[in-house]
Amino acid sequence: MTPETTISATDPRSGERLDAHPATPPSAIPELTAAAAAACSDARLHDTDRRAAALRGAAARLRADGERLRDRFQRESGLPAARAAGELERTCVQLEALADVVADGAHLEPIIDRADPDAAPAPRPDLRRMLVPVGPVAVFGASNFPFAFGVAGGDTAAALAVGCPVVAKGHPAQPGLNRAVADHVAAAIEEAQLPAAAFALVQGDTPEIGAALVRAQEIAAVAFTGSTKGGRALFDLAAARERPIPVFAEMGSVNPAVVTAGALRRRGAEIAQTFVASITGAAGQLCTKPGVVLVPEGEEGDRWCADVAERLAAAQPLVMLTARMRDALVDQLADLAARDDVRPLTPSSARQEPGFRIDAATYETSATALATAPALREECFGPFALLARYASQDELLTAVRAFDGQLATALHADVAAEPELAQQLSAALERRCGRVVFDGWPTGVAVTWAMQHGGPYPATTAPGETSVGMTATRRFQRPVCWQDAPQELLPQALRDANPRGTWRRVDGQLTNASIGA
Amino acid sequence: MTPETTISATDPRSGERLDAHPATPPSAIPELTAAAAAACSDARLHDTDRRAAALRGAAARLRADGERLRDRFQRESGLPAARAAGELERTCVQLEALADVVADGAHLEPIIDRADPDAAPAPRPDLRRMLVPVGPVAVFGASNFPFAFGVAGGDTAAALAVGCPVVAKGHPAQPGLNRAVADHVAAAIEEAQLPAAAFALVQGDTPEIGAALVRAQEIAAVAFTGSTKGGRALFDLAAARERPIPVFAEMGSVNPAVVTAGALRRRGAEIAQTFVASITGAAGQLCTKPGVVLVPEGEEGDRWCADVAERLAAAQPLVMLTARMRDALVDQLADLAARDDVRPLTPSSARQEPGFRIDAATYETSATALATAPALREECFGPFALLARYASQDELLTAVRAFDGQLATALHADVAAEPELAQQLSAALERRCGRVVFDGWPTGVAVTWAMQHGGPYPATTAPGETSVGMTATRRFQRPVCWQDAPQELLPQALRDANPRGTWRRVDGQLTNASIGA
Repeated sequence: MTPETTISATDPRSGERLDAHPATPPSAIPELTAAAAAACSDARLHDTDRRAAALRGAAARLRADGERLRDRFQRESGLPAARAAGELERTCVQLEALADVVADGAHLEPIIDRADPDAAPAPRPDLRRMLVPVGPVAVFGASNFPFAFGVAGGDTAAALAVGCPVVAKGHPAQPGLNRAVADHVAAAIEEAQLPAAAFALVQGDTPEIGAALVRAQEIAAVAFTGSTKGGRALFDLAAARERPIPVFAEMGSVNPAVVTAGALRRRGAEIAQTFVASITGAAGQLCTKPGVVLVPEGEEGDRWCADVAERLAAAQPLVMLTARMRDALVDQLADLAARDDVRPLTPSSARQEPGFRIDAATYETSATALATAPALREECFGPFALLARYASQDELLTAVRAFDGQLATALHADVAAEPELAQQLSAALERRCGRVVFDGWPTGVAVTWAMQHGGPYPATTAPGETSVGMTATRRFQRPVCWQDAPQELLPQALRDANPRGTWRRVDGQLTNASIGA
Repeated sequence: MTPETTISATDPRSGERLDAHPATPPSAIPELTAAAAAACSDARLHDTDRRAAALRGAAARLRADGERLRDRFQRESGLPAARAAGELERTCVQLEALADVVADGAHLEPIIDRADPDAAPAPRPDLRRMLVPVGPVAVFGASNFPFAFGVAGGDTAAALAVGCPVVAKGHPAQPGLNRAVADHVAAAIEEAQLPAAAFALVQGDTPEIGAALVRAQEIAAVAFTGSTKGGRALFDLAAARERPIPVFAEMGSVNPAVVTAGALRRRGAEIAQTFVASITGAAGQLCTKPGVVLVPEGEEGDRWCADVAERLAAAQPLVMLTARMRDALVDQLADLAARDDVRPLTPSSARQEPGFRIDAATYETSATALATAPALREECFGPFALLARYASQDELLTAVRAFDGQLATALHADVAAEPELAQQLSAALERRCGRVVFDGWPTGVAVTWAMQHGGPYPATTAPGETSVGMTATRRFQRPVCWQDAPQELLPQALRDANPRGTWRRVDGQLTNASIGA
């Protein structure tokens, strides 16, 4: 086989090249997307119970094959065993949670306005609205969460849950894991008697394969987790289509955090310890890693920064996902270290062997430099953070306000002692992000109803949506209203009878009762 | 004053040129959008009660000045008196309904997941999420609903309701009405003690002014109602920004309707009568006008088509909004009439005097021609519809499936006698549109919770949203999650106490109670 037709992973821990897997030729895309579109009209895919069974079945299969999958996960990502286990379980829980959501019908957001001949300013007909699937979704898996944001990750789970076929492009760093996971999803789909075309895997390491997928006529939406450059490229392709389609790209961010003097005084050591854990866990390869921390000037701040630097200097070199990512970070850190307004607190990071290793690092700058130099506000993916020192509340707030859209931000403050400052910071942070964390770090994204994993551009291309949590389904649905429809032509969730007890807004009021009951 | 610095309307009924109004120079945009952005941080704009008061105040002012506004409306649009009155009242009701929605807090969609140290697969923090305003919104008014989709129309009402400042670009055909309405909105905003920069009007008839608005750094979203060409141009501009922003463009559609043999038999005359009213009302200048009707071949269908043609031929010439629109329709109809596969049933339409008049018209084609020739599926804005004849259910379904995204569709059927056909048609129609109307026509869009005014591209650029109804606010909001926030730093709607009785999803369950109550 030639390099064009196969892709192989490399074990990031050793640099060892692993087995080759077939790459999907771009010419195969049209058939896959046409089949996915045909599946949209298949009554089996409209059956909520079958879809829920497929999601639960996929979770059961992944758990049952856990040992093999976790081993493959580690070999293709270099991430540690505990992470493999935790992430696999999270992925299964996510599949099951979305099965629960659709079983309940909450994702349909049904609304019913009964006819009102006396309505002002005009009589109104019977109007019933709910959300329907948008059509086939292209899912681009991320390398840093090979399970949870991979081919059976949150995007795939959300799309399948609401009835959208998925064509998943696996991240090329993990072709073997992608194949193994996808085989389980496909088997679960077959076992649940859904159309086989409801799920397909494509693999490849060229831009052409992704572009062919985004341009495919039948694809109705794109979900992506990865770099700003990659996400924006897909967004631009999708916007330039004759029929543009939405791209839900989660593109990472700097996730600036603020530590106030009050917080330093009350729990400086704990903050330093959890911060170091937050930027070294998974070798800092998390889109929610706090990449910049604003720390007060003065002795207490100095001690805190020294504490962080010491803890990092004592850490072993960390394994990164790919050589490209490790090299990119080495270059970024060299560029930063060469700046007049930046001072390395740990020895400058270099390539470490074997595999793709690097030392965790932290550099120092001033909040004013951070506010004025865009290069200091760029994401450095990996085990690194910039500590920006501020001399006054004005300097701090100016630096916070210099930031663009972020996935998350964090505020460590002593709210009782600094109520006004905490209020000002909280307001400035929430304006810029999808999630504000208090007295903690943004790493660790719970899969719940209230989670928001998103944010204004450049954190994402769709600030109104989330890619994690129960409301992540909303991305792959669109509303349809039935006007004066006879009961038998209405979808089940909009009929008068409400046997599932779905919550619906009826004549303006929320109720889970049947109409006329 | 030179033509570059003023714009004037023309009375479409007479062709008389009306008074000149100042055009906004593109150079004035940065100051307006910067002021709008500053208003976003103003605590007054975060006050739901003030915003509701401003919306209600605007409605009261529009009603109080109704006589003058209706007269201006008629002179600048050529639309009849009854329409002026109905549309003004609808616009006021819309402003008041959105004030009610935000008073209730339902638009915030609050979700609370309390901390759970025992959660699987990992302990979870306290997570509280609600929707927040996206920032300043650019609203582009439509000419065919000078009140309801104008500078104080649904888009402006929805954006202001949720706390987004609005910079409204008035349609250049109605500069005097835009100014008069905008003055009332501005006065209501002042009376409610909101920041003055929460609303601004810009006017102009060059592409530059609209482009400057969409490109302005501070604008966070765009709402537009108008042509596909215009909407797509704004969408392309917004997507090409360094920081892309969403464009909610409602771009009209053909709104194909199906009449089955059963429906013809049961109520053919009524269907013909209401259809003619639907395509001649407002001179057919409605984005929900049924532009294509699929009618069975055979004697009954022939009689029905002849009935429609006769009714249209008997109608007086109709006044269109602008010379450009009238001329565009004349050209489109001439092109259609020249085709081999199209047969005019009424005399070919020509320009009529005085002002911008045209005869209502209908042409006939085959469903097969409709399915194969894209030109027959293009919107003809004005008092015209194409009757497409089908010989079989296959031919009918093939034609329906040839259609792209639509705002609305309609099905006239005898569901009891044709259950399977009705089911197939209903499924095919709902796949392609935002609203399916049964035994009626899509014209007339009620402003209620369940209304969906939107649809897949090219009907809109954002199929997941609506531009009419209570959920139209969703376009201008984005979710934010507060993690482990102290009560005093949470927005009111996310605190444990719930004095407004807002419905919230707490630990997965909907409730309007306070937490701990």
